[in-house]
Amino acid sequence: MNYRIIFNTLGKVVWAEALFLLLPLATSFIYGEACAYSFIITIIIALALGACLYLIKPKSDIVFAKEGFVIAALTWIIMSALGALPFVISGEIPSYVDALFETISGFTTTGASTVANVEAMSKGILMWRSFTHWIGGMGVLVFIVALTRKSSDRSIHILRAEMPGPSVDKLVPRSRDTAKILYLIYVALTVSEMIFLWLGDMNLFESVVHSFATAGTGGFGIRGDSIASYSAYSQWVITVFMLLFGVNFNLYFLLIAKKFKYIFKSTELKVYLSIVVFMTALIAFNTSNLFSTIGEGIRTSAFQVASIITTTGFATADFDAWSPFAKTLIFLLMFVGGCAGSTAGGMKLSRLIIIVKRVKNELRRVLHPRTYTLVKLDGKRVDDTTLHSVSTYMFLYMFIIAGTLFLLSFNGLDFETNVSAAVSCFNNVGPGFAKIGPALNYTVYSPFSKIILSVAMLLGRLEIYPILLTFSFATWTNKE
Amino acid sequence: MNYRIIFNTLGKVVWAEALFLLLPLATSFIYGEACAYSFIITIIIALALGACLYLIKPKSDIVFAKEGFVIAALTWIIMSALGALPFVISGEIPSYVDALFETISGFTTTGASTVANVEAMSKGILMWRSFTHWIGGMGVLVFIVALTRKSSDRSIHILRAEMPGPSVDKLVPRSRDTAKILYLIYVALTVSEMIFLWLGDMNLFESVVHSFATAGTGGFGIRGDSIASYSAYSQWVITVFMLLFGVNFNLYFLLIAKKFKYIFKSTELKVYLSIVVFMTALIAFNTSNLFSTIGEGIRTSAFQVASIITTTGFATADFDAWSPFAKTLIFLLMFVGGCAGSTAGGMKLSRLIIIVKRVKNELRRVLHPRTYTLVKLDGKRVDDTTLHSVSTYMFLYMFIIAGTLFLLSFNGLDFETNVSAAVSCFNNVGPGFAKIGPALNYTVYSPFSKIILSVAMLLGRLEIYPILLTFSFATWTNKE
Repeated sequence: MNYRIIFNTLGKVVWAEALFLLLPLATSFIYGEACAYSFIITIIIALALGACLYLIKPKSDIVFAKEGFVIAALTWIIMSALGALPFVISGEIPSYVDALFETISGFTTTGASTVANVEAMSKGILMWRSFTHWIGGMGVLVFIVALTRKSSDRSIHILRAEMPGPSVDKLVPRSRDTAKILYLIYVALTVSEMIFLWLGDMNLFESVVHSFATAGTGGFGIRGDSIASYSAYSQWVITVFMLLFGVNFNLYFLLIAKKFKYIFKSTELKVYLSIVVFMTALIAFNTSNLFSTIGEGIRTSAFQVASIITTTGFATADFDAWSPFAKTLIFLLMFVGGCAGSTAGGMKLSRLIIIVKRVKNELRRVLHPRTYTLVKLDGKRVDDTTLHSVSTYMFLYMFIIAGTLFLLSFNGLDFETNVSAAVSCFNNVGPGFAKIGPALNYTVYSPFSKIILSVAMLLGRLEIYPILLTFSFATWTNKE
Repeated sequence: MNYRIIFNTLGKVVWAEALFLLLPLATSFIYGEACAYSFIITIIIALALGACLYLIKPKSDIVFAKEGFVIAALTWIIMSALGALPFVISGEIPSYVDALFETISGFTTTGASTVANVEAMSKGILMWRSFTHWIGGMGVLVFIVALTRKSSDRSIHILRAEMPGPSVDKLVPRSRDTAKILYLIYVALTVSEMIFLWLGDMNLFESVVHSFATAGTGGFGIRGDSIASYSAYSQWVITVFMLLFGVNFNLYFLLIAKKFKYIFKSTELKVYLSIVVFMTALIAFNTSNLFSTIGEGIRTSAFQVASIITTTGFATADFDAWSPFAKTLIFLLMFVGGCAGSTAGGMKLSRLIIIVKRVKNELRRVLHPRTYTLVKLDGKRVDDTTLHSVSTYMFLYMFIIAGTLFLLSFNGLDFETNVSAAVSCFNNVGPGFAKIGPALNYTVYSPFSKIILSVAMLLGRLEIYPILLTFSFATWTNKE
């Protein structure tokens, strides 16, 4: 294990966080808010801690998969531990466990909140809360790799550990350039959304925070009713951008490179859009009695479907009060998630597609034992390693939901609340059913349950391995 | 496709059912009940139908995996369609859909009931209802193979299609002898339970019906409160026998053959017993406030744990009224099921063990990409075909639960009821939570939902493939 490079990278991470904290600091200065000092204190701590860590110079820049996982896990933990400080110091979330839950929920782009009255929070704190979504959406390590002057080929292990989906491709030969392109697309899309929202009924502050939350597919809002009281125009803009951020970013790169052929051939994109249209139609039809016009019904259904499939978690309606049919669809969508290589959570559509194809193949093999067919996606063969790791991922996925449900049950809340909390937090969605419905929040849970849910959110965002391996004995004992 | 052997075998199946119907017929004669005529009519129909089918003589006795699956699926469907007749003809379950649900629930050893007042039913009908559990437990095709005079080596495909678990071994070289040994063990265990129960507070009739329901891990009772009003002695006897019927029958064969070494080496048995002891302790501790003595608490916890892990579904307590913690444990146990090669349902422990080992291997491989370790169970290597089929099975398992949940949601019942119904029926458990708790029944569901749940029960009992492949287009179009 190359400890030195781990510490050194964590130093950069903490410095990056200090840099990010300048935005909410500036916000609190603009609005003349007292919370500014909480950011200043946190920035000073971050700079000092970062300096200590950065002083540990690596003897070699060798980063294997193992180091990649440990760096990713520790990065997210240290970011969250530090990022929670402004909430506590400002006194806006007095409990450190609650603040940590909120920060992890932010960075992991879950959007589950323990704040009962979000409208009472200061602008600076709200800005930081939403900005964590944006930072976590693309990933802070991707940001650091993009900034690194001399890029090592090994950085791909760090990118892989932080980026979602069954396989991470380099868009261009060098990891650093891949990271840069991804960030540029991310920034361009975010800024576009800000402009569109600003043209509507949102002021600049509202446009910025909601764009951050959409971009990271996070879901923290700044009003008690999330997005419900904004105009139909704003709701449609957010719907479209939620869906855009749920698309594999590789496709935007292909778009820039004018390789339209590959975009139209993408199975994942086709399945994604089909599910969105189909589910919107089903829910709009089922909930039609709740809305005065067809347009309102379609808008509300489309918003909720986009919000849940992309695991954003914004709401314009209390879907917990919908029919069991519509609720069940919402529940099933929580598992799906967006496309691989997007900022969305969930199990990712490409995994689901690979599994369906694999099952079809296996059924064919049962009928005709001598035939052997390959699993193909977009015309390319899915290799055995990917097939294996998708299966293992899905098993771990099931075990973690079962384990989270088990640990939550100590809390004494009802079965429906716990099932939806485990599924929603692990898939980085945010709202659930019953006591944690879209109109409510996670204050009902005990500190112990909040820690369990925080771990579930981290496992979900980093796709299990980094967290699991970092805390497994085998990682630290095996000499290699 | 060898159609002729399919029809011919179904002829034997229907005749076997006519034979089985003699037991409830005799019961209704003994008690002088009017329902006797309903059995006579059904037997006449079965004999006539069986004769028609049996007249189709096969030109060859070739049975591939494909024919095995189709035979298994159609056997269970025809058995259920016919077996439902006595309920309807006697007027004790007037609706055919309800009767079919009850019969499928019986044969699949689920034990989910649509009968609101079971104590009002006649003895003959109750005997048939419980006997379906016993017939379905070991499987009617295993019965037929055991009786077949000249046994073809191909019969293994029929045994495989009907018997649960990731891999079916022949105990002895000939399928027919394997089937015979399995049935003898099954009969011996059932008779032992009858004697033990008869020695307690049950009369002969009660001993017989409860032994049938235990043996098949079914769960139909004859009292409104299931087993709760029987003595502590009877409850312990049933607990022990439920656990015995959840053990892989191969182990009993090894016991007879005095190969004790292999029994003590069985990983599945060790895990099975550990889970039972551990879960009993946890639930007894958690529910201790509900019981006046520690003994009563342990007895009630052990009974419920044994009943759910073996997917029997008997109850001595209304676990739906327990704490969320105890309920969550019961819910998780529903998935587990007993050992492979037992009469229990669920995903089977050996599958779960294989998955856990596989996940461990994969995690090791992620850390050290160059190492490669085999998955071993009881010292033997688990081959790639088994690994593949276990994965595929688990994916289908998830899809079917999701699909069942979706189709049930049309009914308008609450989320908790639907989730527990889908999980409980597909795993062949029986009771669920909320509106279908152990103190209630499935009368709340619409005929459409009952058909969906019936299909789920068949998919669960036959372990998906036979039903899925029989109703898949590919089975009938591919010439081979």
